[in-house]
Amino acid sequence: MNEFYKGKKVLVTGGIGFIGSNLALGLVELGSEVLLVDSMLPAYGATLRNIEPVRERVTVNFSDVRDPHSLGYLVQGQDLIFSLAGQVSHTESMLDPMTDLEINCRSQLSLLECCRQGNAGAKVVFASTRQLYGRPQYLPVDEGHPRVPVDVNGINKLAAEMYYTLYHQVHGIDTVSLRLTNTYGPRMDLGSNRKGFAGIFIRKALEGEKVQIYGTGEQRRDFNHVDDVVRALLVAGESETVHGEVFNLGHPQPKSLLEFVQILQEFADFDYELVPFPPEAESIDIGDYYGDFTLFHKATGWSPEIDLKAGLETTLLYYREYGWPAAR
Amino acid sequence: MNEFYKGKKVLVTGGIGFIGSNLALGLVELGSEVLLVDSMLPAYGATLRNIEPVRERVTVNFSDVRDPHSLGYLVQGQDLIFSLAGQVSHTESMLDPMTDLEINCRSQLSLLECCRQGNAGAKVVFASTRQLYGRPQYLPVDEGHPRVPVDVNGINKLAAEMYYTLYHQVHGIDTVSLRLTNTYGPRMDLGSNRKGFAGIFIRKALEGEKVQIYGTGEQRRDFNHVDDVVRALLVAGESETVHGEVFNLGHPQPKSLLEFVQILQEFADFDYELVPFPPEAESIDIGDYYGDFTLFHKATGWSPEIDLKAGLETTLLYYREYGWPAAR
Repeated sequence: MNEFYKGKKVLVTGGIGFIGSNLALGLVELGSEVLLVDSMLPAYGATLRNIEPVRERVTVNFSDVRDPHSLGYLVQGQDLIFSLAGQVSHTESMLDPMTDLEINCRSQLSLLECCRQGNAGAKVVFASTRQLYGRPQYLPVDEGHPRVPVDVNGINKLAAEMYYTLYHQVHGIDTVSLRLTNTYGPRMDLGSNRKGFAGIFIRKALEGEKVQIYGTGEQRRDFNHVDDVVRALLVAGESETVHGEVFNLGHPQPKSLLEFVQILQEFADFDYELVPFPPEAESIDIGDYYGDFTLFHKATGWSPEIDLKAGLETTLLYYREYGWPAAR
Repeated sequence: MNEFYKGKKVLVTGGIGFIGSNLALGLVELGSEVLLVDSMLPAYGATLRNIEPVRERVTVNFSDVRDPHSLGYLVQGQDLIFSLAGQVSHTESMLDPMTDLEINCRSQLSLLECCRQGNAGAKVVFASTRQLYGRPQYLPVDEGHPRVPVDVNGINKLAAEMYYTLYHQVHGIDTVSLRLTNTYGPRMDLGSNRKGFAGIFIRKALEGEKVQIYGTGEQRRDFNHVDDVVRALLVAGESETVHGEVFNLGHPQPKSLLEFVQILQEFADFDYELVPFPPEAESIDIGDYYGDFTLFHKATGWSPEIDLKAGLETTLLYYREYGWPAAR
């Protein structure tokens, strides 16, 4: 990987958000010429503090992926494009479905059209989501599992992923999609109360507040530290054998929400309680989920290297040093 | 059915197009209070001639489903909504994918949002498509067949269909989706060269021109006469047992393209030739397709009543009486 990214021109949409900024740090270290595109919407987690360590070594362009005009210009001449800009809240996608569609569906087709017309030679890596499977019919979930999304976000991300595959098959654009699962780590947006439990639990742990777990707490998930996700994105971008495909990420040791909270308690002083699901959360909850990432491992050698305990410990250290936003 | 539709307020989007206008005629006959919404785009087959027989007995509103403002007003107070407005050309969806997305994907979510906010009690029937299956992995294709669309149109229609199912599950809106296959008959847009072979072959037969069949002509399809499709839409709208579901239409006697042309030759004087697939058609061709409509038959009793020979004969008679548009 060290040599591949050196001197490469790399565009990252959502480059100042959680995963995008972590990827930006990695790319700078590898010697890429990095262009970050972000519209700095606070609700989506963008803050310039995320890229402080590399601020002078990246180019930042403030624009929204919903704007096809700037996007059409920006994709030109890039060697790689990481499409990470997204609306990631499942709850929010139900409250404001049209915005989710604009960002997660329409803007992805628009990006692909920009590539087709202005840079058909770029490699494009898309951050998809396990959300498009809906409620697992078996575990672990592999890529052949039926895709029956249970919220607007899952539907729009599925459509987007299909555009990426189609543009490879029909137009020859070199795309690859990774289905991310629960990602956590430094620079995640701890302020939001709508982006899933991991960020909320971590913030409450830091603040010594009581954590509320919906249901029994037995529901299991696979958690990927953002450093492992960044490495996955980088190997997908570099791989010579991966073209037009779709891969799960995942972790070999799924944990229950209760275990997640109990690990947090080793590093922070707070209580938790079990509460019933609120109806709007229950209607789109997917229950147990963990993914089979064998396919991606075989194609690229990638496996996660950070277990949840080590990952949460360093995440808390990061936030204790740099602070975190207030709840909203 | 006779009594159910009497006096019902019924909105049909795309109500002046091919299937919409045929549905409008049926609804008027059944005594419904019919509101047709159409933006009269010639490329999409709308012409006021389609509704001439009932022009004084329906209300026509010229607006586009891409306009959420008028749609939000129009859905109010309707008992049933038939969502038929669509961009139906697979080729066109590859040339102008953003327009296909706006109509087939975004406008469907928008319609559902309009219902959720302004008329959550309406029954909504969505005209979906077999195109979302992509290339059949087995035949006949049932509703459990993997959905792997091979063009932008198929992806957008799949996303739309998923919105309809989701809005039933989460918001309780009474939706049903029918996956239409090749529909033909009076009022279809014979002028377009991009809406599939059936219309083109019928026009050329009428004009005595040579028909070009791509490939071997052995590829089989199931053809539904529009009267059978209208009846399917009506029973779906009326059914008390069908809620939030998705059903195939289809025909028990699939025919090859060659057979389709040879039946046409019984009623018209023209020649045909086999020619190789043009690349842009081959890349999105789905090969053999015919669907299993057992599920819809069991739920509603519907089966097609018109076989291809009788259907094509009356279709040609219709056009010979009323004329047809020039090729474009």
